[in-house]
Formats: sequence, C-alpha cells, structure tokens
Amino acid sequence: MTSAWLAAPIPEPSSSRMATARARQDRLTKPPGSLGRLEELAIGLAGLQDREFPAADRVRIVVFAGDHGVVRAGVSPYPQSVTVEMIRNFSRGGAAISVLARALGAELEVVDVGAASDPGPLPGVVSRRVGAGTRDFRDQPAMTPEEVRLALRAGAEAAWRAVEGGGELFIGGEMGIGNSTSAAAVACALTHKAPAILAGPGAGLDPAGVARKVAVIEASLEHHQFFLKTPLEILSTLGGFEIVALAGAFIAAAQRRLPVLVDGFIVSVAALAAVRLRPEIRPWLLFAHESAEPGHRVVLEALQAAPLLQLGMRLGEASGAAVAVPLLRLACVLHRQMATFAEAGISGG
Amino acid sequence: MTSAWLAAPIPEPSSSRMATARARQDRLTKPPGSLGRLEELAIGLAGLQDREFPAADRVRIVVFAGDHGVVRAGVSPYPQSVTVEMIRNFSRGGAAISVLARALGAELEVVDVGAASDPGPLPGVVSRRVGAGTRDFRDQPAMTPEEVRLALRAGAEAAWRAVEGGGELFIGGEMGIGNSTSAAAVACALTHKAPAILAGPGAGLDPAGVARKVAVIEASLEHHQFFLKTPLEILSTLGGFEIVALAGAFIAAAQRRLPVLVDGFIVSVAALAAVRLRPEIRPWLLFAHESAEPGHRVVLEALQAAPLLQLGMRLGEASGAAVAVPLLRLACVLHRQMATFAEAGISGG
Repeated sequence: MTSAWLAAPIPEPSSSRMATARARQDRLTKPPGSLGRLEELAIGLAGLQDREFPAADRVRIVVFAGDHGVVRAGVSPYPQSVTVEMIRNFSRGGAAISVLARALGAELEVVDVGAASDPGPLPGVVSRRVGAGTRDFRDQPAMTPEEVRLALRAGAEAAWRAVEGGGELFIGGEMGIGNSTSAAAVACALTHKAPAILAGPGAGLDPAGVARKVAVIEASLEHHQFFLKTPLEILSTLGGFEIVALAGAFIAAAQRRLPVLVDGFIVSVAALAAVRLRPEIRPWLLFAHESAEPGHRVVLEALQAAPLLQLGMRLGEASGAAVAVPLLRLACVLHRQMATFAEAGISGG
Repeated sequence: MTSAWLAAPIPEPSSSRMATARARQDRLTKPPGSLGRLEELAIGLAGLQDREFPAADRVRIVVFAGDHGVVRAGVSPYPQSVTVEMIRNFSRGGAAISVLARALGAELEVVDVGAASDPGPLPGVVSRRVGAGTRDFRDQPAMTPEEVRLALRAGAEAAWRAVEGGGELFIGGEMGIGNSTSAAAVACALTHKAPAILAGPGAGLDPAGVARKVAVIEASLEHHQFFLKTPLEILSTLGGFEIVALAGAFIAAAQRRLPVLVDGFIVSVAALAAVRLRPEIRPWLLFAHESAEPGHRVVLEALQAAPLLQLGMRLGEASGAAVAVPLLRLACVLHRQMATFAEAGISGG
C-alpha cells in the first residue's frame, strides 16, 4: 500500500480571515475580549475554514477501535472481549458517544481497525481490520511497517469521507482495552518522560495495576530502545491500530482544511505523534478537554495545547470532544448573529 | 410591600433520587465515574428536580437591568446610557444573551428594575422599575429598605413566572453600567476581604481606573462601617437593584424547587448575599463558569463553589451560564439514554 498521501502539502489557516473576524469581534456589542475563548474559537475557525462566518454544524465523529497484545500483561481491569462488545454497543446506539452524537446531530462512524475478533457487519461500523489486535510489545514490535501504513490509511480514508460528506469539524475517538498502556508508552518515547509520569489508572486500574503498567512500559522502552528514533518507529513498536489510524486521520484532515477537535489522553498522544510526523498540522488541532488521566497534562504541554474543558472525564470514545462541540457552535453563532455597536446604536463602540 | 414570601420554607434536594441516579450511573456502559462532572450533574439534578430522569430542556433566562449612582465616581469605561441602550439591544435580539438564548431554545426575559431612564414598553422587557438608578453610595445608602423589598420582590416574581412557565432551570443575569463596583463593595462587606482583592477591571477599566474603583470602595466601606452588619443592610447600602433582584430570584427559585445556574462575578455576589440571607438555598445553586474578573474566585470560594467552565468570559448578561447549559443537557441525556451493562450484554459491569 502506498503512503504517498502522507506527504501531501498541508495548508496554512487564512490569516486574512482571522484578521477580519478579529475586527468584527471588536465591533460586536460587548466589551472587547469579554467573550474570552469563545472569541478566539470564532476567529480561529474563520481562519481554518477560510470563511467569513465559520460553523460547526456538520460534525463528523469517527471512533477507531482496536485491541492490544499487551493486555496479556494485566494492564486493564476489563477483559479484551469488551472492545468488540463496545463496538456492538456503539452500533446499537447505547454507548456514551452514540448518545452524544445523537444529541448533537453529529454523524458517528465506527472504524474497526483491528479488534481481537471480527464483529462481522454491523450498522454504522466500517471494517478496516489491520489485524486481530496488535502483538504484545513487551518482546516484539506491536505492528509491522505495513500494518502501520494500513492503519494510517484507514484513518486518512475516514477523514476523506468526512470531507466528502461536507464535514465542518472532525472528531476522532478510540476504543480498545489496554490502549492507555500503548498510548502512555508512545508518549514516553515521543516526549522522553518517565512512564511513572505518563501511565495512570486509565479505565480504572488500582494502584498495584498502575505500578504493573509502569513496569511493563519501562521494560518495553528498555527492550526496544534502539528502535524508537522516529515517530513511525515509535508507533510501529508501541502503538495500537486505533492510535495510528487517529494520527493518519488528523494529517489527512489538515491536508483537506478540515479542523480537528481533539479528545482526551489517548487521542492527544495520537495527535502528538501526528504533529511529530507533520508539524504543519498543529494549527488544525483544537483541544476539547483535559482528561482526569494524569498523563494528559504532559501530552498537552508537549503540544502547547490549552483545552476548553476540564470536567474530570476519562471515558474515551471521543466523549470529551463531543461535549465541547456546543462551545464551538455557540462561538460561531455569537460571531454571526450579535449586533455591532453601529447596528445597535450603542455608545462607546 | 410585604416580604412574607422571603420566609417561606426551602425544600431539601431528594437524597433518594440522588441515590437512585448514582446507582444508575454505575450500571451504564462506561467505567464508573468516567463521565466526571457530567455524572455529578445528572445525579445532582435528579435530586433537585426530584425526578428519575432530570432535564434542562426548558430553561428560563432572566436578565435584570439597573443603574448605579456610583458611576459618578468614574468607575466604568462606558457611559450610563449604555444600560438602556443594551436593554433595547436585548429586546431587538442583538446582544450576546439574545443570540445564546435563541441558539439554546431558552426563554429570555429582561426585567428593568431601574435603569437611569425609562426605556418605555419594549418586547420581552418587563418593567419593575424600583427607581431611576440607585443613589451614589459614596455618601448615602444606595437604596432605602423599601427599595430593597421591591427589588427582592421583582426578582421573586421573575422566578415565579419561570416556575409557572414550566421552567426546569433558572438563569439570572445582569446588565448595569457600574455594577461590578457595587458587586465588589457588597462582596467586601460580606466576606471581609479587601477591595483590592475584589475589585477588578470589570467591563474594561485600565489600571488607573481599577485603583480609583478600589479607593471608592475603601472609602465607602469606611463611611458606612456601622451599617454593614446584615446581608440586607449590606445590599441596601452598597447594592444595586439588579443585584438585589437576583438574590430575591434565587431564594424564590429554591423555595419552588427550581434549580439555578449561576453566572459570573456579579451574579455570584448576589448568590452569596442570598445564601447569607437563607443558607438553605445553597444546594439549589449550580455554578456555570469562573469569570476573568479576578474577584470572582474569592466569591466562589466563599460559596464553596467549583464552576463547570473557565473560558475567560467577563461579559455578564448571563452569558457564561448560558454557555454551560449544553453541559447540563448532555449530562441529562447521557443519564437517560445510555445502555446499562446488562442491556448491552457487556462483560465486567
């Protein structure tokens, strides 16, 4: 499979649209700057979407699901079967992200990039299975270079579908038992921070489980130390299919001028890997929330990102990003619909 | 005018509804606690609304507008005429809160409790004018005890209208040039903190203006020091009609089991005064956002409140509370619509 798409140019946001939007914000009937980050969002989206009046009405949420060989090390409180069970739950509309997508009028797509077993055809689920879960990275690379290419491509295709569907905002999410261990390992290799800083309770590990997770990552980083020099090596060695797919999706979205709203810890690690691969995508990433997972703050710092929300969420599935969508929508509608001082005949404008 | 309503009993939230809601949250298909504050919101609203499935679909937003004699001291960068001009802007739908209310499908009501001049009849504006602005509190009480009663009552009537209209959530906002000076003075008297801590730039004062504002409040607190012993004395001496009306609205809302979503600095000062008057209302107050106005944090601490959002907003008009409404709605819809582990046939539930 060719990865020529990965090298395609990444546009810059429109600085003239941003300047126009900033000037409009200063003419709206409010003290300048008094809408805080909602003003920044409207100005930023105007630049990204290259529109006078940006919008986040058509939102595409894609949840990538995959399994992880490293679960054999006892790094999750849930059995691996939960990944496929949750794919079915997404499809039936019972998961948190299913409910949120419906409430927001957003399109939800689930991409199976490699759950441990094949759930078979399901409504709303796209099958792009790279394998039946990754290999256990404690003693071998999680995936082959070809598998990395396939997973990147599965992500890119999801972004292309979003663009073709007229999406104004792309949200990527993940589901995969054990994937906070993979994400923490990738983050350690990318940031050179210690596993004790980046590994946390994930879906609910107890302190003994977290200590085990830290030890597993430490040993794996040691074992693979000469094969962790580039972002693609790191993803191949320690990543998960869903994490790699997210990185591919973000690069492809930026290439097509589709702004991305980044979810929590695991998705942010994918975003960091994507930024290390293609630094020009960074302006295309907006950050939705700071997860309760302690390592998220370190990853956000590496991305120089200040998320919109801090609600103690730690579910994944893109749920934190979905919850931030109304903020973007309200920022856009304020930008478009508020009266200017001149229109309202108000003093001091 | 009688204030007998002020003494009416304030119910407690239903602890049994909260227990039932908490148990449901732990059966939904997610790691327990992983929706963070959205879980707390659903559980808290179930207790407040005494319903199995709480909701925030029918939201009533009431913006109280009034003017302030203390503006003569040069404590605002805007002329006093802006208060009435903004009442017209609310009525015509061009203000931030007008746009937000439309976008949220919320009912917006503006109550003129005493702008400096009478705007006359306007669509969506209720006239409950207590006076043509308060007196300059530098050398006299801002209002008489009878004016306090009228303003409290104007607030209570707005809450009663919200209850009669089937409101599920009450939001109070304010508009009034100079009211961050009045609010800071009230907060100083209620918390015994220094004006330098509670007075900030408000709608956009420069540092020299903030220093003037601090000096005005210091001198006023000194001047009135023997008349600031009770919450009602403090409101009468230093308050504004809209601040007193907000306090009345919050007490009346709690009396009728209507949860309140509290906006920024000025509204939080009104909430603090209301809690000092009737401490039993505290559970009925949810806090939406932390304002960019530095004194807000001090007031929130006095209320032991942890707001949902921190977006650097400092506009007033209930705009910060409005922006938090989607979080409450999403919390409610997740609580109601997510599948349980048993329903989804998922392991580990």
